[in-house]
Amino acid sequence: MKGIIENLIEELTRLPGIGRRTAQRLAYFILSMPEEEARAIAGAIVDVKEKARFCRECFNITDEELCSICRDGSRERDRLCVVEEPSNIAVIERTNFFRGLYHVLLGSLSPIDGITPERLKLKELKERVEKSGVKEVIIATNPNTRGEMTARYIKELLSPCGVTVTRIAYGLPMGGDIEYADEVTARPWRVGGSSCSGSTLCLRPVFSQGTEHQSIEKSVLFRRCVSLLTVPQRTEESEIM
Amino acid sequence: MKGIIENLIEELTRLPGIGRRTAQRLAYFILSMPEEEARAIAGAIVDVKEKARFCRECFNITDEELCSICRDGSRERDRLCVVEEPSNIAVIERTNFFRGLYHVLLGSLSPIDGITPERLKLKELKERVEKSGVKEVIIATNPNTRGEMTARYIKELLSPCGVTVTRIAYGLPMGGDIEYADEVTARPWRVGGSSCSGSTLCLRPVFSQGTEHQSIEKSVLFRRCVSLLTVPQRTEESEIM
Repeated sequence: MKGIIENLIEELTRLPGIGRRTAQRLAYFILSMPEEEARAIAGAIVDVKEKARFCRECFNITDEELCSICRDGSRERDRLCVVEEPSNIAVIERTNFFRGLYHVLLGSLSPIDGITPERLKLKELKERVEKSGVKEVIIATNPNTRGEMTARYIKELLSPCGVTVTRIAYGLPMGGDIEYADEVTARPWRVGGSSCSGSTLCLRPVFSQGTEHQSIEKSVLFRRCVSLLTVPQRTEESEIM
Repeated sequence: MKGIIENLIEELTRLPGIGRRTAQRLAYFILSMPEEEARAIAGAIVDVKEKARFCRECFNITDEELCSICRDGSRERDRLCVVEEPSNIAVIERTNFFRGLYHVLLGSLSPIDGITPERLKLKELKERVEKSGVKEVIIATNPNTRGEMTARYIKELLSPCGVTVTRIAYGLPMGGDIEYADEVTARPWRVGGSSCSGSTLCLRPVFSQGTEHQSIEKSVLFRRCVSLLTVPQRTEESEIM
């Protein structure tokens, strides 16, 4: 005897962060929408399930052989940003700061959960770097244990390739408050790199390039980086990479 | 060049309270859902648009001639709860307190917006009360100007029918704080009724019936009601009904 509205409410509560009340509000909103708009939503859901596949090059989600970023001729093809999930690409794209290509790992290393390097798109990353003239790889995995482990693994993996390997910057989030920052985040200019031989792996001020901001900061960063590397004892956190 | 995920994100942002970030989270969640679950959501959306119609009796949303509540033989058929919108039914149903039937007005009176009594299902309410042996009508329109006006109109409309017309209780919301209540809400035992002749119209302790709670409160309420009715001056608010 379940009504169609009840049914829609139940279906919507399957979605994350949508409780009964929100689902109810959405259901009645959908009911009041023009039919073609409601159909467009339903169609978009079905499309995603039917047509979604991984981009042959970067493993982003697409409905074609190559994703729109890989197809885009205006992107810098010698810079790769490595992310864990396809959804991370949108976050970096929103910054409008990076004009290179991406490489999605489809996860992060976690040997305890059985996620070994073979389960991720790491072999494909190495092949891509070797074959397609990539000069710089920016690792944008998450700043947590798994993401750090993955970043470190990539650094080792790419060390024979002679490309620059950098890591997305750590620091205080914009709009944040230094008062509430943890002791790792608030460390001024945390720059790591257990060894800087082979491919260097150091903090870069996000993805900025050639702005006045960076022209000042880069030299400071460099000096800091060098000075840090001469300090013999480092805690685990300062070594993050 | 808009991708299928981008498209889904855009479609989802049409929904109320769903911004870009939430839409993105939902889109990637839908992508990771089993296909049949995603299809069920899409199907439920299309179903609502295709099959939704008003119940012939109560104007609730249904996909059949009569809604599930009107079809339910176990409901008390001599009590009607009048609500503004179909979505309000779910709220009252969730209380598990009311076992009668509903009547949806599909709006509330607002002459300034051109919503006159003819635009609402008021004629149908009167016919229903006259024909189907209803003994009590509980008005659960919103506690605002439009809802109050509508409730007052219904009281007048049904006064020749000899049914008891009551109004859903006003008072402090459960879990609220008397500190922050406005002067109308916090009025102890606000009981109104500009005249109690004909059909009585008074506050009832929500929809409780025959519980110990009510057996005590009802007599108190009655005494209060009577005493209030003997007070000659009343403010507009106390008269709400």
